[in-house]
Amino acid sequence: MAIVYVTRVERFNAAHKLWVEEWSEEKNFSFFGKCANKNWHGHNYRLEVTVKGTPDPQTGFVIDAKKLGDIMKREITEKLDHMNLNLDVDFIKDVQPTSENLTILIWQQLVTHIKGCELASVKLYETENIFAEYKGE
Amino acid sequence: MAIVYVTRVERFNAAHKLWVEEWSEEKNFSFFGKCANKNWHGHNYRLEVTVKGTPDPQTGFVIDAKKLGDIMKREITEKLDHMNLNLDVDFIKDVQPTSENLTILIWQQLVTHIKGCELASVKLYETENIFAEYKGE
Amino acid sequence: MAIVYVTRVERFNAAHKLWVEEWSEEKNFSFFGKCANKNWHGHNYRLEVTVKGTPDPQTGFVIDAKKLGDIMKREITEKLDHMNLNLDVDFIKDVQPTSENLTILIWQQLVTHIKGCELASVKLYETENIFAEYKGE
Amino acid sequence: MAIVYVTRVERFNAAHKLWVEEWSEEKNFSFFGKCANKNWHGHNYRLEVTVKGTPDPQTGFVIDAKKLGDIMKREITEKLDHMNLNLDVDFIKDVQPTSENLTILIWQQLVTHIKGCELASVKLYETENIFAEYKGE
Amino acid sequence: MAIVYVTRVERFNAAHKLWVEEWSEEKNFSFFGKCANKNWHGHNYRLEVTVKGTPDPQTGFVIDAKKLGDIMKREITEKLDHMNLNLDVDFIKDVQPTSENLTILIWQQLVTHIKGCELASVKLYETENIFAEYKGE
Amino acid sequence: MAIVYVTRVERFNAAHKLWVEEWSEEKNFSFFGKCANKNWHGHNYRLEVTVKGTPDPQTGFVIDAKKLGDIMKREITEKLDHMNLNLDVDFIKDVQPTSENLTILIWQQLVTHIKGCELASVKLYETENIFAEYKGE
Repeated sequence: MAIVYVTRVERFNAAHKLWVEEWSEEKNFSFFGKCANKNWHGHNYRLEVTVKGTPDPQTGFVIDAKKLGDIMKREITEKLDHMNLNLDVDFIKDVQPTSENLTILIWQQLVTHIKGCELASVKLYETENIFAEYKGE
Repeated sequence: MAIVYVTRVERFNAAHKLWVEEWSEEKNFSFFGKCANKNWHGHNYRLEVTVKGTPDPQTGFVIDAKKLGDIMKREITEKLDHMNLNLDVDFIKDVQPTSENLTILIWQQLVTHIKGCELASVKLYETENIFAEYKGE
Repeated sequence: MAIVYVTRVERFNAAHKLWVEEWSEEKNFSFFGKCANKNWHGHNYRLEVTVKGTPDPQTGFVIDAKKLGDIMKREITEKLDHMNLNLDVDFIKDVQPTSENLTILIWQQLVTHIKGCELASVKLYETENIFAEYKGE
Repeated sequence: MAIVYVTRVERFNAAHKLWVEEWSEEKNFSFFGKCANKNWHGHNYRLEVTVKGTPDPQTGFVIDAKKLGDIMKREITEKLDHMNLNLDVDFIKDVQPTSENLTILIWQQLVTHIKGCELASVKLYETENIFAEYKGE
Repeated sequence: MAIVYVTRVERFNAAHKLWVEEWSEEKNFSFFGKCANKNWHGHNYRLEVTVKGTPDPQTGFVIDAKKLGDIMKREITEKLDHMNLNLDVDFIKDVQPTSENLTILIWQQLVTHIKGCELASVKLYETENIFAEYKGE
Repeated sequence: MAIVYVTRVERFNAAHKLWVEEWSEEKNFSFFGKCANKNWHGHNYRLEVTVKGTPDPQTGFVIDAKKLGDIMKREITEKLDHMNLNLDVDFIKDVQPTSENLTILIWQQLVTHIKGCELASVKLYETENIFAEYKGE
């Protein structure tokens, strides 16, 4: 009963800023630098979702990668694509939209929709040089 | 006197939206789709600038790629990075911030700073799947 | 009236083989090597289509990249994706399905559908290390 | 005695289809979609093999990456490249050639050839957006 | 108290060779092949450093990725970039500069500078096809 | 008689430094910066060679990409891979080994070996962010 990990990649483009309401403007700029620009900035995000399970003896699938992609689009990227992550998304309200927090929130959105195998990792690239990963720990 | 093309890549992350002031909200959404989201969206832009010229017989340089990078940073990416392309950048005011228009505007900003060789192309990737190029034609 | 080039990337996965009917089996294997395997092989193809034109003064578009993508999907990638390029595609019948020939055939399929700007290039990556480009010359 | 993981990447291009013999044609197409095309489709596969071990005090090698590459070519990619994964490969016979199953089968082919360190992971990219990994669990 | 992994990528370009002083020239060339070329060769190295920790409730950061990048530059890439890894770097003296050994040495340089979270992985790409990873095991 | 461009990519890893013998040490470091390090530095070079011609009516080839790869390996990458570009390569002697000069020299080495079609471009990536191209102009 071998365990195999299957990963699917989807993408979305969004605006955000980093800002702590309780802090002064000066402290926000000092801490977050250009990420605190009031007029927002944005990214092309790359989302990698990994599930683990045993391949079905007939189909050879741990999960149908097309169906995993459909879940990721319906639950996540169609809600986030071309949106403002601070303002437009129900499940991100009142949370700082860093890549770290986004991986946890995306995990919470996806976990009940993965059937017949187990969610193993949510990885989010903010740029090609910075990414965060949450494994449910 | 061989002609060689030298290209340097820099990057910036920015927010924007596409919107024609003279149009109704309905027409804007119908034409631009999600790109018209009032709360903005954003991209990781990849900027490729190409110059052409003859390599110096001693140094072998058409241009010092480090200096070309410094010009690109000083004139373009430090002004655009983590900015809102509709609101924050002097040389983009009153122009629709599509990749097409950005390549022309970036060319105009750079062309007087390239010395000893000739600006040949400004190429801008909005995503890995969509890019625009202006060659001064 | 600046001229800008806009490129859109789409992808498809297909099977093919290279084989000249007039040649013996021996000559086919000698010339095409493993590409002549009778049971087919396949590739993840990356298709880049470039158009040229002047950005519209209001919208900033040479072409709506989403519409260009829709044309590429409808006319090309939905017909080629997960297909056998020797057997399954009407517009490739009786032509050797090399990347070279595919770029010409794809150009012919697309050229009448590009309105308001001009088709400039069809580039097809067979692998990340081999690609062909046709510019209508 | 530090443990270091060393990974080597090789590539192969192959055709396959997904099909369950016990199912009707209708059920196959309903379940596998375009992947069930009888005339096959194909991919550029990217194979990443990781071994773990302690670097040799003199050579600094966990494994000679060139030798790991030679094993991967001899045992795997030379047997799979430009082949039909359903028909042409001894060690894939009677198994659904999904990426999931391929990672397990490739592990089984490689594991006895890795000497002086331990096989840790076989990862196979079917496209840049879908990949499977088997870690011997 | 969710645990999230944050990764930052930096790059450096360096020369090196692989050579065991205690071995004859013949044995060195036989074992290391072209990597033993006395006049050196070189690589564009890609360095990925991963830390793990709990996102701060206010800032959403496990670590400020900019600060992680500054540590990586100050402690590692500014010391290695455009250097000879056998001759020019204090902390690599008397160790074979393989990617395996470099990951361990880079870990040792970085570990005391990571505050408020934990160093989890140092991954070094020597080429796009060969990389090593050390996780402190 | 359509003209199609075919490109093949090969890679090599090499050491070099930039230095003008007629200049003082101070002037060399002031002009070339870290590229003048006496102990050398190095790169993973990516070489793209493009030929142009008409696809053969039977084979569909402008050139057999495998044969183009063989020429590139025999004439260029086997001579440059794991070498010192200032010291070890006959056809680079007495020329500053910048990417600009290398594209011209590689063109001169290749041009007589391309038969039945025409050499159109030699493009050399020194890093993913800096590259040079020579088109025989």
